[in-house]
Amino acid sequence: MATEGVLKYPIIAVNDARTKHFFDNRYGTGQSTLDGIIRATNLLIAGTTVVVAGYGWCGRGVANRARGLGANVIVTEVIPLKALEAVMDGFRVLPMQKAVQEAGLVITLTGDIHVLRQEHFKAMKDGAIIANSGHFNVEIDIPALEKLSVDKGKARPYVEVYTLGDGKKLYLIGEGRLVNLAAAEGHPASVMDMSFANQALCLEYIAQNRDNLENRVYDVPESIDETVAQLKLEAFGIEIDTLTAEQEKYLNSWEMGT
Amino acid sequence: MATEGVLKYPIIAVNDARTKHFFDNRYGTGQSTLDGIIRATNLLIAGTTVVVAGYGWCGRGVANRARGLGANVIVTEVIPLKALEAVMDGFRVLPMQKAVQEAGLVITLTGDIHVLRQEHFKAMKDGAIIANSGHFNVEIDIPALEKLSVDKGKARPYVEVYTLGDGKKLYLIGEGRLVNLAAAEGHPASVMDMSFANQALCLEYIAQNRDNLENRVYDVPESIDETVAQLKLEAFGIEIDTLTAEQEKYLNSWEMGT
Amino acid sequence: MATEGVLKYPIIAVNDARTKHFFDNRYGTGQSTLDGIIRATNLLIAGTTVVVAGYGWCGRGVANRARGLGANVIVTEVIPLKALEAVMDGFRVLPMQKAVQEAGLVITLTGDIHVLRQEHFKAMKDGAIIANSGHFNVEIDIPALEKLSVDKGKARPYVEVYTLGDGKKLYLIGEGRLVNLAAAEGHPASVMDMSFANQALCLEYIAQNRDNLENRVYDVPESIDETVAQLKLEAFGIEIDTLTAEQEKYLNSWEMGT
Amino acid sequence: MATEGVLKYPIIAVNDARTKHFFDNRYGTGQSTLDGIIRATNLLIAGTTVVVAGYGWCGRGVANRARGLGANVIVTEVIPLKALEAVMDGFRVLPMQKAVQEAGLVITLTGDIHVLRQEHFKAMKDGAIIANSGHFNVEIDIPALEKLSVDKGKARPYVEVYTLGDGKKLYLIGEGRLVNLAAAEGHPASVMDMSFANQALCLEYIAQNRDNLENRVYDVPESIDETVAQLKLEAFGIEIDTLTAEQEKYLNSWEMGT
Repeated sequence: MATEGVLKYPIIAVNDARTKHFFDNRYGTGQSTLDGIIRATNLLIAGTTVVVAGYGWCGRGVANRARGLGANVIVTEVIPLKALEAVMDGFRVLPMQKAVQEAGLVITLTGDIHVLRQEHFKAMKDGAIIANSGHFNVEIDIPALEKLSVDKGKARPYVEVYTLGDGKKLYLIGEGRLVNLAAAEGHPASVMDMSFANQALCLEYIAQNRDNLENRVYDVPESIDETVAQLKLEAFGIEIDTLTAEQEKYLNSWEMGT
Repeated sequence: MATEGVLKYPIIAVNDARTKHFFDNRYGTGQSTLDGIIRATNLLIAGTTVVVAGYGWCGRGVANRARGLGANVIVTEVIPLKALEAVMDGFRVLPMQKAVQEAGLVITLTGDIHVLRQEHFKAMKDGAIIANSGHFNVEIDIPALEKLSVDKGKARPYVEVYTLGDGKKLYLIGEGRLVNLAAAEGHPASVMDMSFANQALCLEYIAQNRDNLENRVYDVPESIDETVAQLKLEAFGIEIDTLTAEQEKYLNSWEMGT
Repeated sequence: MATEGVLKYPIIAVNDARTKHFFDNRYGTGQSTLDGIIRATNLLIAGTTVVVAGYGWCGRGVANRARGLGANVIVTEVIPLKALEAVMDGFRVLPMQKAVQEAGLVITLTGDIHVLRQEHFKAMKDGAIIANSGHFNVEIDIPALEKLSVDKGKARPYVEVYTLGDGKKLYLIGEGRLVNLAAAEGHPASVMDMSFANQALCLEYIAQNRDNLENRVYDVPESIDETVAQLKLEAFGIEIDTLTAEQEKYLNSWEMGT
Repeated sequence: MATEGVLKYPIIAVNDARTKHFFDNRYGTGQSTLDGIIRATNLLIAGTTVVVAGYGWCGRGVANRARGLGANVIVTEVIPLKALEAVMDGFRVLPMQKAVQEAGLVITLTGDIHVLRQEHFKAMKDGAIIANSGHFNVEIDIPALEKLSVDKGKARPYVEVYTLGDGKKLYLIGEGRLVNLAAAEGHPASVMDMSFANQALCLEYIAQNRDNLENRVYDVPESIDETVAQLKLEAFGIEIDTLTAEQEKYLNSWEMGT
């Protein structure tokens, strides 16, 4: 909207605050996505092959938590750099068409549309479970799934079972909506507190600096990010080091140590 | 009872089957204990200091899963060998009295009585959460907790909040009963299947061999354990290697290779 | 030998002491195997697909450490129960013939003969590295590898490069001998101390109880195992809990708690 | 230098390329630091309390690898946000003065001066090992250590043992120089390839665009970063997905999905 000149007021991209996306997206989504899936299905994650579509902050959160619960995790990506990070983090990286053939559970977290499509449903194993924890219920092409199916019913609360023409059953959680909201309680309070603190402090910042801000998208001011982190550490009762005068001087100098 | 001669029929200790305690106790309890705690509290495990009392099969299952969800885990034990294993597995090992001073969450899985007692409640931090996933609601000395408290109320479904004399609040989940049964759905079906398969096959074994069995406690026959494991692998669609004739001969010989 | 009646004196199977195989085999071999491989090759383990043959104490030690260094680990097994444990621990389990097709590094720890054979060498990728950390240099069928090769040379100290007929190169470390001894320093002192303590205390036990012992293989007395564990904890400066009188009584009773 | 206007030619900060710091710093330093320490000391990392000073890319690489090898890891930091990330990643965070009291091994990776000082040496346990993997040998205040010591000798190659006044011994690896260079082989080739590729491609970029570049510090062009990542994936033989036309359109639109 800023690019098209239709933004009516200044915006701070709170979602890009490091105390937001590092925590809410990575740790919050990581746990709550699997929480939602377990509540909906009572699936044992250990021993399950889990496909995670997307290795952004949310995807890597879920991939790590799934591995932490004993899953064998496959990552799919479209960006080489993120794919490479997934490889170096010990995950297998495959194209989706190959990944789904091994999957007991597939989770989409890409922010894009139709990540799971007709050709993927056809290749899935009988009994596979499908969930979305991206931003909308468009990541899974549900109309395509409906079209492939000869029968549809409720397996458990929040779980729809689709029977395909060949008798194979696929299980869709929460109608493809965000699974942590659909089947669990969203993020834990102890991670949302940082997101809300960022929102509150950024609103305050905009109010106080309204006259100097243009109608475009701003980054979260670094000082707000640091304040939120500092407050959270204090809430944990954690103390950290501070730089000595000698250290501060060293960091600001390029002459010493060369 | 066998020792006291009051056992009236032969028993097979199904709980000691490797396909039972390796799986049901370790993987099942590992996940379902944390599942119960998360459902009851919506606590973010990442960043939480979690004390796991007992490093038996259940305890190590929970300790690993808590670490897998991002917790910093402290283990308490009374048996040196198990304590040492916990240390070598990268966990901190402390006496309970020290451990509770850092805990955001304490989980008991010892099979013993009063693992958490008056002196421990007194040393806990404000806001600490307490749960049991051992065998009975005796692991936590609830009468002692009641006695220390000046107020008691319901914080959330399955969560009792106790206010101590100094104003500190402690949260007890599921009245100290098995937290995976109290606040979640017990073990996933995909791990109970192995326990039930052991029970069914052991009952069949007793029925078929009744005349040759004394009124004492037997181990699960190894062949039953292996059958259950083999069936489970097949259910996963996993194929493994078999020994070549040369390899079988080698394994049975002490002469070769010396 | 005991079975064949040719054992000339009593033996205690020190290798079966829990403070031996839990520690020396699992933690010692786990680290020193990868240490040997890294010293010999300077391979980055992160991002590498590592095949671990055998999921006994040594194999699971290596599998865990390889994963801890960022590898994607595939396990091969012949025993269903161990294969299933590997699956539940989050590893992929494949037959060797399929596993080698993806491997950057293959490590054998089975205690058996010819785990890697002609058909496996043929299926390996160009550049694959082969090492043994089992008990003898028979786990890899080196004569078969020689026969397949048209050229052989030294790639680095401790590393032989074999060029196969199709131009593919395979790298064998330490002539297939125990890689932690061939290319590193064997186990760290801090794990061998427990093995040696077991050996010393078991020798003392045999000397003191010679008259009451038959010429067969005995388990390590439990008290020796516990003593070694206790001494090791003290060396770490780690204190653990002790049972209260009430707890001891509870553990010995089947009447209470039912 | 750019700030002070004394830069004589354009610079591209190759160290900030994501295919450099994500890989070289995180995965390369992670493994090679511990490799150097193990070669120098043959220390068993499992069961050791390891203090990692600094949770930048290098520090988190080492912290993760140490944990992967079975250590109990403590992180020290001066930046709240990084400290908080370490907490959420499951590490303990302490001020250095408390951390060294528990340490079996301390590793500095801060890029700053005198991270380990007189007061820390005094608080360390007998037998503690000290190493640096930051950028220079100034992170450890070696003159202060010398001053506290009554004796100094060679314990093993690359390991100096300092005996303090109270008889306590501290072990310094590689004279406080970069431990992966001092005692191992630096980074593995398979991670340096990406750093060198970045350097080569950035030099080419400067040569081709010299006339349009000012004498300041530039970021690595995104296209170079992506090219390096893509080439590395191909070297691994890894294939990834590409966006469909529908997906590209969706990503560039803010109208759909709202």
